[in-house]
Amino acid sequence: MNAPQSPNTHPFAEAARDAVYQAIFSRRDVRSQFLPDPIPDTVLGRLLMAAHHAPSVGFMQPWNFLLIRSPESKARVQDLFRKANDEARTQFTGDRKDLYSRLKLEGILDAPVNLCITCDRERTGQTVLGRTHMTEMDLYSTVCAVQNLWLAARAEGVGVGWVSIFHRDELQKALGIPERIVPIAYLCLGYVSEFLEKPELEKAGWLSRLPLEDLVFHETWGQTGGPNDSLAPHYQAMRKRYGYA
Amino acid sequence: MNAPQSPNTHPFAEAARDAVYQAIFSRRDVRSQFLPDPIPDTVLGRLLMAAHHAPSVGFMQPWNFLLIRSPESKARVQDLFRKANDEARTQFTGDRKDLYSRLKLEGILDAPVNLCITCDRERTGQTVLGRTHMTEMDLYSTVCAVQNLWLAARAEGVGVGWVSIFHRDELQKALGIPERIVPIAYLCLGYVSEFLEKPELEKAGWLSRLPLEDLVFHETWGQTGGPNDSLAPHYQAMRKRYGYA
Repeated sequence: MNAPQSPNTHPFAEAARDAVYQAIFSRRDVRSQFLPDPIPDTVLGRLLMAAHHAPSVGFMQPWNFLLIRSPESKARVQDLFRKANDEARTQFTGDRKDLYSRLKLEGILDAPVNLCITCDRERTGQTVLGRTHMTEMDLYSTVCAVQNLWLAARAEGVGVGWVSIFHRDELQKALGIPERIVPIAYLCLGYVSEFLEKPELEKAGWLSRLPLEDLVFHETWGQTGGPNDSLAPHYQAMRKRYGYA
Repeated sequence: MNAPQSPNTHPFAEAARDAVYQAIFSRRDVRSQFLPDPIPDTVLGRLLMAAHHAPSVGFMQPWNFLLIRSPESKARVQDLFRKANDEARTQFTGDRKDLYSRLKLEGILDAPVNLCITCDRERTGQTVLGRTHMTEMDLYSTVCAVQNLWLAARAEGVGVGWVSIFHRDELQKALGIPERIVPIAYLCLGYVSEFLEKPELEKAGWLSRLPLEDLVFHETWGQTGGPNDSLAPHYQAMRKRYGYA
């Protein structure tokens, strides 16, 4: 086993850089491809460490990681999902409602490990460096931990699905999470039969990938690069290099 | 240039997995090490594409990327920072106040590129799949885009610093961002003289890294692994393998 690069290597060698982009572009929100194979502690330990090394405002590290494997807890959470999803479905109409009803939006029972990542807003007291004005920064830090774990999981061959169709207070109560703690993400984790070539909602025709060219502004809100956008050829090169991007 | 792995490769080969963990563990919130060297379009294009491939609730892709390079805009933003930071400082007392005053908390003028990543909450209408119950999911999606960019930047040798000491409405006005849009992150981007071995706030003695062993719960809130925690040896192995972790 070769030692990894020094922490101060910058930039990475091309193959290492490629690996980071591959994790980013082939990461998927998994609902339907979970395998029952257990996740070894060595892999789960690495994933949790990756999450723990997310950036956090004022270095407050506001997160906790609640691992859920018991069938009873999972079933309780899935019941909450089902109830909330029935409510959600009624908010769509016509063809959208039909399509919505056909989508599988969680893999709670299929995934061997469920993980609730939470935010303790008072971990380091009321006053937090960097949170004095934008008070939601600690919630955002916790989301960075989610994304770290998601990308590390992709590299490990572990799929992650973020389930968000819950009444938060019900989820919190079902998991015994104290009131002062904010549950940020309920994640399903497991090995997968495949990582889909594209996001499932894109494949299903729910929405299309937006052209990045329309989303990047220069100096002024709304000012795209236009026909001479000097960044556009580089987006195109990425799409070509990572066929799935 | 070798073609990258197929999108369906899972898990990654060991060296590729290592690269992902290296990006995660050696990523830093940069304030003091920026170099004036410009970021080539090819690199900036890759970073933006990485951000654009973040997960988003209901595939709504609610983000925009406002690039700021003009010295005038940067100076305007730095003024807002200075004013807010003067207010922030008064919230700390004694030794903490002295230490706070010595910390450099932004690199707005030093970094060649500034980037505001925003969230358009109505991009795909009022009703969004997955946002029906947890209404902040689109804000969280945008944070995932920030973290994707941050990790890709580490692989490219580009440092990123997230500046959060602003009154949001003032920042928004200074950048001409419409009221209905939520600015999520104001980032400073540039090549760096070095990536610090540890987070700057940890080095400065502001706060210490928490032991992950205390943050992971099993099945029940508060139930750590205790003395026989089967995950702990694997955290320890990570700390050893990535000396900086």
